[in-house]
Order: sequence, then structure tokens, then C-alpha cells
Amino acid sequence: MSTRNREGRLAEEKVFKDPVHKYIYVQDHLIWNLINTKEFQRLRRIRQLGTSYLTFHGAEHSRFSHSLGVYEITRKIISQFERSGYSDWPKEEKLVALCSALLHDIGHGPFSHSIEDVFDTQHEEWTCRILLENTEINAVLREFDPTYPERISAVICKTYRQPIVVSLVSSQMDADRMDYLLRDAYYTGVNYGTFDLERILRVLRPHQGRIVVKESGMHAVEDYLMSRYQMYWQVYFHPVTRSSEIILRQIFRRAKELYGGGYKFCSLMEPIKKLLAGTIDIEGYLELDEALAQTAFAQWQNELDPVLSDLCRRFLDRKLYKYVTMDAPDEKLWQQIRDCLQEIGLHPDYHLEIDFPYDMPYDVYRPGSTTVAGKEEKPPILLLSRDERLSEISSRSDIIQSITGIRQGKYHLYYPEEPLRESAHRLPANIRELFAFM
Amino acid sequence: MSTRNREGRLAEEKVFKDPVHKYIYVQDHLIWNLINTKEFQRLRRIRQLGTSYLTFHGAEHSRFSHSLGVYEITRKIISQFERSGYSDWPKEEKLVALCSALLHDIGHGPFSHSIEDVFDTQHEEWTCRILLENTEINAVLREFDPTYPERISAVICKTYRQPIVVSLVSSQMDADRMDYLLRDAYYTGVNYGTFDLERILRVLRPHQGRIVVKESGMHAVEDYLMSRYQMYWQVYFHPVTRSSEIILRQIFRRAKELYGGGYKFCSLMEPIKKLLAGTIDIEGYLELDEALAQTAFAQWQNELDPVLSDLCRRFLDRKLYKYVTMDAPDEKLWQQIRDCLQEIGLHPDYHLEIDFPYDMPYDVYRPGSTTVAGKEEKPPILLLSRDERLSEISSRSDIIQSITGIRQGKYHLYYPEEPLRESAHRLPANIRELFAFM
Amino acid sequence: MSTRNREGRLAEEKVFKDPVHKYIYVQDHLIWNLINTKEFQRLRRIRQLGTSYLTFHGAEHSRFSHSLGVYEITRKIISQFERSGYSDWPKEEKLVALCSALLHDIGHGPFSHSIEDVFDTQHEEWTCRILLENTEINAVLREFDPTYPERISAVICKTYRQPIVVSLVSSQMDADRMDYLLRDAYYTGVNYGTFDLERILRVLRPHQGRIVVKESGMHAVEDYLMSRYQMYWQVYFHPVTRSSEIILRQIFRRAKELYGGGYKFCSLMEPIKKLLAGTIDIEGYLELDEALAQTAFAQWQNELDPVLSDLCRRFLDRKLYKYVTMDAPDEKLWQQIRDCLQEIGLHPDYHLEIDFPYDMPYDVYRPGSTTVAGKEEKPPILLLSRDERLSEISSRSDIIQSITGIRQGKYHLYYPEEPLRESAHRLPANIRELFAFM
Amino acid sequence: MSTRNREGRLAEEKVFKDPVHKYIYVQDHLIWNLINTKEFQRLRRIRQLGTSYLTFHGAEHSRFSHSLGVYEITRKIISQFERSGYSDWPKEEKLVALCSALLHDIGHGPFSHSIEDVFDTQHEEWTCRILLENTEINAVLREFDPTYPERISAVICKTYRQPIVVSLVSSQMDADRMDYLLRDAYYTGVNYGTFDLERILRVLRPHQGRIVVKESGMHAVEDYLMSRYQMYWQVYFHPVTRSSEIILRQIFRRAKELYGGGYKFCSLMEPIKKLLAGTIDIEGYLELDEALAQTAFAQWQNELDPVLSDLCRRFLDRKLYKYVTMDAPDEKLWQQIRDCLQEIGLHPDYHLEIDFPYDMPYDVYRPGSTTVAGKEEKPPILLLSRDERLSEISSRSDIIQSITGIRQGKYHLYYPEEPLRESAHRLPANIRELFAFM
Repeated sequence: MSTRNREGRLAEEKVFKDPVHKYIYVQDHLIWNLINTKEFQRLRRIRQLGTSYLTFHGAEHSRFSHSLGVYEITRKIISQFERSGYSDWPKEEKLVALCSALLHDIGHGPFSHSIEDVFDTQHEEWTCRILLENTEINAVLREFDPTYPERISAVICKTYRQPIVVSLVSSQMDADRMDYLLRDAYYTGVNYGTFDLERILRVLRPHQGRIVVKESGMHAVEDYLMSRYQMYWQVYFHPVTRSSEIILRQIFRRAKELYGGGYKFCSLMEPIKKLLAGTIDIEGYLELDEALAQTAFAQWQNELDPVLSDLCRRFLDRKLYKYVTMDAPDEKLWQQIRDCLQEIGLHPDYHLEIDFPYDMPYDVYRPGSTTVAGKEEKPPILLLSRDERLSEISSRSDIIQSITGIRQGKYHLYYPEEPLRESAHRLPANIRELFAFM
Repeated sequence: MSTRNREGRLAEEKVFKDPVHKYIYVQDHLIWNLINTKEFQRLRRIRQLGTSYLTFHGAEHSRFSHSLGVYEITRKIISQFERSGYSDWPKEEKLVALCSALLHDIGHGPFSHSIEDVFDTQHEEWTCRILLENTEINAVLREFDPTYPERISAVICKTYRQPIVVSLVSSQMDADRMDYLLRDAYYTGVNYGTFDLERILRVLRPHQGRIVVKESGMHAVEDYLMSRYQMYWQVYFHPVTRSSEIILRQIFRRAKELYGGGYKFCSLMEPIKKLLAGTIDIEGYLELDEALAQTAFAQWQNELDPVLSDLCRRFLDRKLYKYVTMDAPDEKLWQQIRDCLQEIGLHPDYHLEIDFPYDMPYDVYRPGSTTVAGKEEKPPILLLSRDERLSEISSRSDIIQSITGIRQGKYHLYYPEEPLRESAHRLPANIRELFAFM
Repeated sequence: MSTRNREGRLAEEKVFKDPVHKYIYVQDHLIWNLINTKEFQRLRRIRQLGTSYLTFHGAEHSRFSHSLGVYEITRKIISQFERSGYSDWPKEEKLVALCSALLHDIGHGPFSHSIEDVFDTQHEEWTCRILLENTEINAVLREFDPTYPERISAVICKTYRQPIVVSLVSSQMDADRMDYLLRDAYYTGVNYGTFDLERILRVLRPHQGRIVVKESGMHAVEDYLMSRYQMYWQVYFHPVTRSSEIILRQIFRRAKELYGGGYKFCSLMEPIKKLLAGTIDIEGYLELDEALAQTAFAQWQNELDPVLSDLCRRFLDRKLYKYVTMDAPDEKLWQQIRDCLQEIGLHPDYHLEIDFPYDMPYDVYRPGSTTVAGKEEKPPILLLSRDERLSEISSRSDIIQSITGIRQGKYHLYYPEEPLRESAHRLPANIRELFAFM
Repeated sequence: MSTRNREGRLAEEKVFKDPVHKYIYVQDHLIWNLINTKEFQRLRRIRQLGTSYLTFHGAEHSRFSHSLGVYEITRKIISQFERSGYSDWPKEEKLVALCSALLHDIGHGPFSHSIEDVFDTQHEEWTCRILLENTEINAVLREFDPTYPERISAVICKTYRQPIVVSLVSSQMDADRMDYLLRDAYYTGVNYGTFDLERILRVLRPHQGRIVVKESGMHAVEDYLMSRYQMYWQVYFHPVTRSSEIILRQIFRRAKELYGGGYKFCSLMEPIKKLLAGTIDIEGYLELDEALAQTAFAQWQNELDPVLSDLCRRFLDRKLYKYVTMDAPDEKLWQQIRDCLQEIGLHPDYHLEIDFPYDMPYDVYRPGSTTVAGKEEKPPILLLSRDERLSEISSRSDIIQSITGIRQGKYHLYYPEEPLRESAHRLPANIRELFAFM
């Protein structure tokens, strides 16, 4: 193995210029070869933030950039562990950890959240299939070490025998989150998301199968969590972004519905067809990228189904749904609106969408609880005192205590403005007022 | 007219978050409406730097972002002129100038340089057609003022009656260049491209139909030109980017050749077909975007023509051509290589490309000469002394004198490595040595 | 008056390069003349952060820089108010507000907190005296408008007839705090203190005699308050800085005690003598600067009094007191330590100091309460809704609610390490353990 | 020795927050102990840029900060050499190099250039004396290794047996210059001075007793030299800074002249007296700092000699000399002005100073020539090609060729405005015109 590792080093390290980390350093043949596979290059064609570029025009960065960033942060953490000679860090896991960091998002498709919602798939599953089935990535890994595909897949499924490797890429303060906060802040131009990465890296310690934080780093972690809080409210939950995601989801929902109902599409490219038919295989999945999705939408603008063509036009030309905000749910009112829509010839399933941003499977910080769906949460952030005692951070920091599990969100009703406004005179007064139609 | 202007102001200014300028401010209905046209939204699907993202992974920003940036710089320049009450600035031209800044790139297609080369079109022409023909942009402009389409088109063609408006968006130090240097530097992460925009804006003066620079701003201009020099050599002329542009150009060239020869494509989407046939109209042109181009390449990976499918695969999977560098041209050697390629069954027209970065229609700085093609150069940068005398900047600054018209570039020979390496034993020694095949 | 204003504008605006705001713009003769007075230039010789440079070596910036910064932020706020034409902003107060911003710290002496503590003076009083008595500043103001000295003094005493002017320079989110957070963050290199100034400026509104915040700016204010929270804990309350402040205070306390007791100083420069004698007048006060204070300390290193000379040496050579931390007060223990110090020949009044950072007269955020001392707090931050209702921000934001009035600080015991360690064998076990003397 | 090195490592590395390098890492007891000597702490009381803070108010940073920065850059360079295992780097010299970097400026006094000019001393000499004579620094070094004082002193005198160590801290692209360019740019706020430090560090190579640059780093070096060019013209040679330096030099010149002539000073602090008398020893020299100098100036404002008191007032209140610019020397005119000054009762030696910024002992870049004074220049920057050939950079880069030895400066005549203006009617027309007295 040691010979292999030695062979594995590049004669001269490769360097990527990166706006967030300045440079990304590649020192191993294995990493270099993985980056050059076609499955990894495909990540260049999938935006990191899905439709957020429709709200923050700068947010056009890809999952390719982010994946390199996660790799780089992981490399730095491990390098610090090695320099300091911490005995709790299993040195032989370095390359497994680096590969996992690099590849953790390899299974993402275009606009993943929407596609996963409508077609009931999960990008983590696709990640494992790309690692284990017949792909260039699988070949590169196997050639290096036949056990690698399984091991990296185990890290991503959080079943790996060395939990500390899992926690590097999947915990409340993992390399994934650290990179995306910094990167999304950089590309949107929102400076709330910045925190002192160098300091956080310095206070991380491997400790009994976990990554913990030296007590003196508490304020740095507070700052990191506040960045996260701000990014969620300013960027990730932005109502305009949610509006575009709703349009997207409706496009896929409508297309699936039409396909299921035997509708004949004028244009239907092969991988999309498989997606609608529920028969998509790994080859087809890898052909899905944002270029393909947008081209499909462009073609569907000319479909005969008015709902589908309207939605596609809205997405491409950014004529999004408008919204009104409500503090509390009101099922009765919502039903009344749906009935009205029906009456005036609109489509209640497509022309009204009620959104509550907390449906999303993450929150700012929760220490170790389980989600409603019973899914296990990411492990909490632990502080390590000088005398080696551990404590969960929200028990030590008032500020973190206060944001833990905050749930005060609002309801947004999304709707297409023009058709509603045109029939405003046929709507009851309370609804006219709600939508501010005079 | 004054009533119109008053009407034309938005009740509350709109704001775009922008990483380069922090915020972009929209104060006029007209500008807001132009941004919301489908032709302007289309710019979101065209990258500012073409294929540079294959070299600098961060450079994934679109012409949409850049166009907003050029608008914002122009707005700031004019706002400074108005605040200072300079009499040489024609106040009534403000909106024409802002529209021209916003729309100056509206005619760009995907990977413009390659398409223009192969299909002999020009994005400036398309810009004018989009302004003048049946588009949403034309409708928005006409509704505001029936003379606007023609006037803005004249600014872009540099024939406008008020040359100072032309020089705002097209000169050696115009809003266009200032934005792209800063923006490309930001997104690539290369910090050579930064200069002190705020200072430059402060030293600009309208003067007898031109924008000139207060003498005391000379060092700021030097810094700006040095940024430009560095960006050209570090980013725009980067040999890996050139390699990907060559692949692109070859894809289009091959497809056109095949189409002309009657080849039957398995997949040929309508706008691409029109492009190959030379019958593309404005509607078809507006459907061309990078999503469509990349989807076409994805489909063509499966074409029977091995040259085309290989090129498309290379582009999508980033298996670019390698290159060797030569200080001087050597036509004889190049012909010898072409003959060898022919002999070993390769394609001299596609498997060897000689590139000399100075073919590109710009250089770092040239004061007022005309290009080889007889095309008029961008007007030079003039310094205005305290006693109102003008002097061309390179006559005053040694450092600018020294970079003016620098032409020391090198020749790069691009070629596909694997097929050549496989047949290396069939190549003469001098060529084997050139390509470092042992 | 209008002629005066016209006269009052500089023919060409003056510009200061500033690392925090990029540039500071001076447009009025009055402001320019104030900056050039000797009292204002004196602020160059007084550090903004007192002794913090002994902890953060970059924090060497002066009150001169900060005062320009407060002026610039105030200028930007007013300029926004004027551009937007808000009727609640009293336009005629512009210059009074700018002068107040520029001069609000003019009464600061070297290491103000320590001197104010020991000699029971207040820099606000000195500010008013400098405005009203025989100084260059008074002359410049009077020449412009005889009412100006009184008016600006009233703004600083918070008794001005236009409370909105007071709130610009003295409220929970005033120009003073905004500048010092950004500036201190910049010079220390701690990036916790950054927030989006441009956005905050955009959401401020004059409203019935107060500056309030547009509701949509709530998250920006959250971010600003979080910066403040972090800066207090990371920078302003840093225990090493507190240690150096303690040394400083002790130097002044000792010198005053010696002077009062008739001790003959080898060196005693005139302004210091007046300070110790309690007879300092405005002329003497203006001679006090950090150069003078440090020179006095340098001379006192050679005084015969061992306490004074030791303290001065400690300050200049940065041999600060060490500290231990305690969660709760323990008067009995503290008395025991004092007794022990006495016994081993040390000086309980000088060789032990107990510090609880909340003694300081500010906290992160408190909405409108009064302090223990009955002194009125700075007015709270109010949000203005679209329908013109006001609400105090902590009632709307969970995160601000949670940091309001946080008081969880710790106790620090400061002491000189070497003399204690040398006599460690004479200390009881519990004290030896506390100080970690084995 | 190896045991010593092992002992020499700190149990936990110490960290300084630094705005330029983010953090400065101290890993050795020796370095830590040197920083804590009183001679090193004294550098906190000496500004890095002398009087530049009178032009750029942010430039208040000290030689303490800069010295830490030079140390940190040196540490990074060596760490890269060690990681890469370059055989041309003498590993055993690491600590000597780090100490030399840290201490290279230890001999600087307040406003060094002026004092050196007037009193004919050199800070390099003082540096060596502080290393070799009876100081805390000498004690710390000797305790670690008795040969260290001599060795470090040899590095600073450029006579060390290992020239590569000398070139780390003293060459055309040494750690000293790299830190001061970045640091001065940061603190002035002038962003011309930034260059890509991380990239430059990566392309440095130890090679046969020198530090050279990998050929591929040429553009990074160009960028670094351009930064230097801009910083010299924008900051270091700024005419207002030169004016304040002239005042300073005149203060010292006048005081020396008065002292020599037997004038009785009202106030004359001991170390200043020794300086004027030419009897200053090392103890006295170490008491000289900016606090002392400024306090002396404050006292001298009240001296009876009108020239001295006026100069001191000018310096403290920033009433600097004005200047006019001339393209070419004109000795005849200058003599005429001096004669006129004499006639109207002014002092030709103090009230006129002609400055040509190139008198200063550095220029932007000169490859290996010797200065007029016969002093050896800093060694040039060498590029190392892939095949291990060396070439001097200006022979490879047009842009560097063009700035090499640029000497186009102008002459500035400095003079006190008011007294001249008052007697303007007594001046001949040509001089009135020169000074723009109407």
C-alpha cells in the first residue's frame, strides 16, 4: 500500500484557480483522474444553486466548482490533522475521504430538488450507482483499489466503518456546508455568508470517531452558524427563487401527467422520455443536464397543451408567479381560491401553489434530533474543553441556543398574475383584496 | 418630453445584488421593461467568456450579468457628469446612453467567436436587427419613443450624431471594457484584473464630444491598462481556452461541411439546421443559446461521422487538444506535419490547428491606428491638462508607451494526443521530438 | 443663506483615500477648514482603539481616520435622504449634521477610558469646551455661522432641537457605530465586523424626528447587530486588551496617588503635572496625546517608586498581567488573595485586579431601557412597515430578541506572574492551584 | 542540535491575527521570545511609512506589524521548500533565516530617512549593534545558540556564508518587499499594491545559492513589479509626503545647527540631546521612538528660535509646505529665488527645498547594476526554465524591460506659502507667476 501511495503522488502538483479558496491543489493521480472523468465534467453543466440565478444573477456557478471546493476544504482539514499528528485521525483513510468529498454530489441531476420531488428519486442513490456501476469513475476507482467504489459509497450512505470520515463530509459543520456557504455568498455577492474558514479549520480536532471543535473556537462557530442563518433567509428561501422552483416543479409534473395520459409531444428527447416514463437508467440519467432540460423547455413552449407551454415560457423568459404572504395557514380561504380559479377557467392545481419554506429538509441548526420523517439528522457540533470534556454547542452559546430550531416562517401563495387580474371582476371581494386587485 | 421623463421614473428604485458593483440600481421604467424582455433574459443562457470556464472553472457568468454591469457603470459616469454640471454632456441623451449600454451585447449568440468565424456573421448586426425588427425589445423601445430603436442602433453602429454617447460604450476605456475586466477577474478568481473603478469614474470628463481623462488620473489609467494586459495574457489568451475554442470551431465547421455535402444527421434541431443551411432568421437566431448548442453536441456524439462525434465528445468531456509552442512560424514544418497526418490516416484539417493569439481583433492598447482589415480602431485615451490641452496617453506615460502595440506572441500547434501517439512510430524523428513522443 | 451655501461649496471636491470607504469626499469649505485645524489634526496622535494594538497588532488606526469615516457615512445617509426627497428630513440641517459627525470625538484624550476613570473627566465635556472656547475649531465654526458652535455642541449633548440630527450621530445604529465596527474589523483583520453598509444606508428613512429602518431591511440590521456582538466578544472585551487597560489605569492611579502624597518626580512634563494636580485647562488638555503619554511612561521607568516604574515598563515592553477566569464572583477568595499578597510583600491594590467586562457602559443591544446609572440609553432601532407602523426590532426578530441584554460574562483576575510565582511556596494550596503554580 | 530543535518547538503554535496574511504562525520558542523582547516591542512605536500618514491617513501601521509579516512570508517560503524537498535549500538554516526576517528592521529609529540624512547614521548599523551588544535580543539569541548573533548580523550585512539566506530577506523580490507592498497597499487603501502572493510563493525555487522563479511564473512577477511601480508613484513618492519629510529633515537640521551653535533649548530630553551632540549610544538610541520625537516637537513649538518653532508647528498641525513642479532643473532660477527670499527676510536654507524623488536609494527595478554611490544593488530576478537555464527577467518580458531604470521624474520646489504670499509684491514677476501669486 505504501508503494502505491508513493506512486500515487503527482510529480508536480496540479493547481486550479478558484475565487473562493484562491487555489485548489491536486497532489494525487487518483484525484486528478477522477476530475477528468466524463461524469465529473458533467457537473459543469449543472448549477450549484438551481434556479437561484433568476433571483441573484451572479449565482451561475456549477456543482463542478463546489465539488472541487469541498475536496479542497477536506484536504486542508486532513493536512492539519496530519501536521499536528493527532492520533485519533486514521491516516490510511485520507484518500477515501478526499474521494468522498470530491464525489459526494456526483449523482445530482439538473434542478435536483424539483426532479426528486416529482419523480421520487434521490440524488444520493444515483451517486452510489455512479460509483458502483459501469462508469468512468467506477473504472478509475477500481483500478486504484478494487475496494474503493464500495468504501466511498459507504461514506456517502453514512454506513462507513470509520464514522470520522463520514463526519468530514456530512455533519452540521462539514466541508460541504463550509464550501457552499462561502461559495454561494461569493457568487451571489451577498456578504452575509462569509466566516473565518482558516480559523475554523484550526480549531477542528479528530476525537473518538468524530470531528469536534476546540472550546476556544466557540465564537468562530457562532459566526459560521449566523452566516448559515443569514444565507438561508436571504438566499436559499428567497421567495422569488421559490417561485421559480414552483414553476419548474409544475413543468415536470405537467409533463409527467401528460405523458401518463397518452399525450403526444411534438418534441421529446430520449432521456426526458425515459424520465417521464419512469424507465430511466444510469446512462440516460447521466445525459440529463441543465442544457438538455432547458432545451426541452424551449421545445415545449410550442406544445399544444397550454398549461405546459405557458409554464415553459414563464421559466425561460422569467415571467414568474407573483406571491402574497400570510402569517398563518388558512385552509378554508385556500379552498375558496381554488374554487374560484376553477370557476374562471383556470387550473387550481397549477395556478395556485402554497409554499412554506420549512418543508425543506434542512434547518439552520438542530442538535441531534430526528426529523419528522424519522430521518436521522446530521450529528451536532461538539466543543472539546481543555480537560477533554465534550459539550453540545447550543448548551454553551446563548446565541446558538436562540437560533436552534427556529421555525417562524410564513406562508406564500404563488399565482400567475395576468390571467387572475383579467378575471378580477369575477372574484369575490376578499380574494380581490388579497391579491391587491382594485 | 419632461412629463415623459417624470412618468418614466420608477416609484421606488429596483436593485439587483451584484458581486462586482455590490448593487445595480434601476430607476427608469424603460430600463426595467427592457430587462424583462425575453431577448434580454436569453442572455442568461450565454456565458460571458465562452469556453473559458473549461480553464477557469469559476468563469461561468453570463452576458446577462455583464450587460447589467455595463449599464451600471454607464449610469454612474452619467450621474457624475450630471452632478458636476459639465456643459459638454448632452443631458437629454441619458436614456439613449443607458439603453445602449444595457443592450450592446444583445446580439451575441452562444460561443459567438466560433460561430461568427464559421458562419461569417457578426453579433453587431444581430444586435441592430434585434433592436429594429419584430421583438419585445423593439416594442418596449418604440412604445417609449418611436425614435429609440434607430437611435440606439446608431450608437451601436458608431454612427450616432452625438459621438460622446458612442464613446461611453465603445472606446479604449469604455463601460464595456471596465465591466468585463472587473467581472472576469472576479469570476475567474484572477486578481490581476482589478483596478480602481471609483477613481477612474472620478477623473472622466466630457469634452467636445469625447470622454477624456483629467491629467491627474494618469496613474489610474496606467493601472487599468496594466490590468488589461495581464487579463489578456493570463485569461483571454490562455492556451487551454484557445484549445477549447478550436474544438468548438471545428465542430461547427465539420457540421457545416457535412450538411453541405448532404450528410444525413440522426439529430438536427431546427435552429441548428437553419444555421448550417445559412437560412437563419431572427426568430431562429434568438433560439440559439448555449443550452441548445450543448444539447446538439450531446446528440452529435452519436453521429456516424467519426470526426464530428469525436469533436463533440472532446468538448463535452473536456478532452481537449494538446499543444506545443513555437517562437516563430515555420510553414514548411507545418506542411510536413499535415502530410504526415494524412499518411497515418488522420485529418490534417481537423487534427492540426495553428494558433497565433494576435489574430483576435483586439490588443492591449493602440492609439487611434486602423486595423489591418481597415476597420477603424477604438478611439485612443486622451488626457486633459489643467489648461485644457489634450494629449494622447502613451505620449505621456512610459509604461503605456511600452505596452502599446506589443506583438511578441507565440505560435501554438494544437493536436489530438492519443491518435498521434499511437502512430508515433510512423512519424519522422523531428516530428516525434516536437510532440515529445519517445 | 443660499448665497452662503453657494460660497460654501469647494470649487473642486477634495478626496481622501480611505481603506474602509474607498474614498471620503469633502465638498464644503467649512468641513475642509475644520479638518485643517490643529485640534482635529491632533486626533492623528490618538489611537481609535486605545491599547487594543497590544492584542491585535494591526489596530493602530487613529481617531482621525474614524472621525473622517463617521463624517462620510453621515454624508452618504443625508445624500440619500436628499436624493429621495423625504419630507421628514430637515434639509437646512445638513451642515450641522456633517460638522457634528466630524467633530463628535474631538474631545477624546489619549487612552480616554483609563484617564476618565482615574481623573473623573468625560470626553463629551471636553468636546463641548473645544467647540465653545478659544480654539481654531471654534473660530472656523463661528466665522461660518455664529450659531454653529452652540448648535453642534447641542447635538453632541443630545439636546438639539432637531432630534433627528442627534440620532444620526448617536443611536443604536448611528454613523459612529457603523464606522467603528467596519474600521476596527478592517484594521484588526477580524472579519466578523463586516456587514452590508450599502444596504443599510438604503433602508434608512427619516420619520418624525427619528431615523428608522424600512421593514424589508430587517435581516440587514440583524447582520449588523451580530457583527457588533462578535466584535465585542472577539475584540473589545478581549482579556489581553483588558489587561493592558488595567496596567494603564494603574499607572495613572499610582501617579496621581504619588503626586497627591507629595512624591517628587524626576520627570514630570507640564500637561501631565496639571492632569495629576487636577488643574488641567483646555490648552493643557489639547497637549495631551499618546506621544506625550508614552514619553511620560518612558521617563517614569526610571522613577524611584518601584510600583510606578514597574507598571510603566510593563506597558511599554508589553509584559502584561496574566489572568485566570472564574464563572462566578467569590469575594471571600478575592480577599484571601489580597491578604496573601500583602503578606508576601506585594501590593494588593496594584497586583490584583478583578475585571468583569460588563462594567463597560455599552452592551450589544438594548431597546430603550435606562442604565443602572440612570443614564439614558441610546434610542432603539425601529422598523417602519409599508403601512407606516413602527415596531421595535427585537419584537420582530428572534435572533435579536436572543442577544438583547445578554449578560453572561465571566470574571477575570489579573496579576503579575513573576513576583507571585517566586513566592508561590508561601501561598496556600488553593491559591497556588488557582494560578497553576505547581 | 536535533534535541535542541525538538525542544525549540512550542507545545501549541501561537497565532497573531494579521489583516494582510490573515494569521501569522509562530512555532518556535526562539521566535516567540524574540518577539517579546523590549527592543522588538519598541517597533510598535515606529511607523512603517514614516510621515505617509499625513497623506494617506490609514497608513498608521508600525514596523512591528511589518516585521511579523516579513517573518511570515519567509516562513511560508521555507515551508514550501521543505515540503517539496528541494535539495538546494539548506534545511539547517531555517531558524537563522526566520530570525533574520523578523529582526531585519530592528535598528530603525523614528522617521529613519530624515534622521539618517541629518545625522549620518544608518539603521543597518544599528541593527547589527542591537544584535551584537548588550540587549534582550542578544541575550535571547545567545541563549539559544552562541553563534546566532553573529550569524544573523552577517545575513543582514549580506556577508553570510549561505547567500541563499541573504537573498530571502534582501533581493529584488524578497520577503521584505513582498510584505511592505501588500501591507502598505492595505493600510493606505490603495489597491495598486496587491499582487498574487500565493502564486509567487509557489513559483519560487532555491537554486545554487539563490532564490529564482520558475519560468511559468513570469506573469506573476510582472504583476508584482507593476505593483511596485504603482506604489512608488502613488504612495512612496507622493509630493505631500515628500513635503512632510522635508519639514522633518529641516527640524532635525535646525535643531542640530542650533545645538552646535550653543543655543539654549527650553526643553531638551536626554536622548534627543545625545542625538544632537552626536554622542548617542545604543541605550539612548533605543529610547528614540516616534512618541519621543513628537513630544520633542511639541515642546519645541515654544522655543524662541522662530525657524524651529515654526517648523514644529507645521509638522504637528500639518501645515506643510506647498510645491510647484518643474520638468527640468533650472539652477539659475533657483538661485534667483534664494536671493529673493533673503531679501524679503526669509531663510533660503529652510524656506526653499528642491526635491527630485530619484535621490532615494531605490528604484522600481534594476537588474544587477551598481548605484552611483558604488553600492551594490540587490540581485536581479532570475527565471529558471524547464531545462534549468537561468535568464534575467527583463530580457524575457517586454513590460519589465520598459520599466527598468525609468528615470523620468520631475522637480518639486517646496516653500511655505503664507510668508511668501504676504511679500508677493516684493517679488519679481517671473517668481510671482511661478508661485501663482496674482
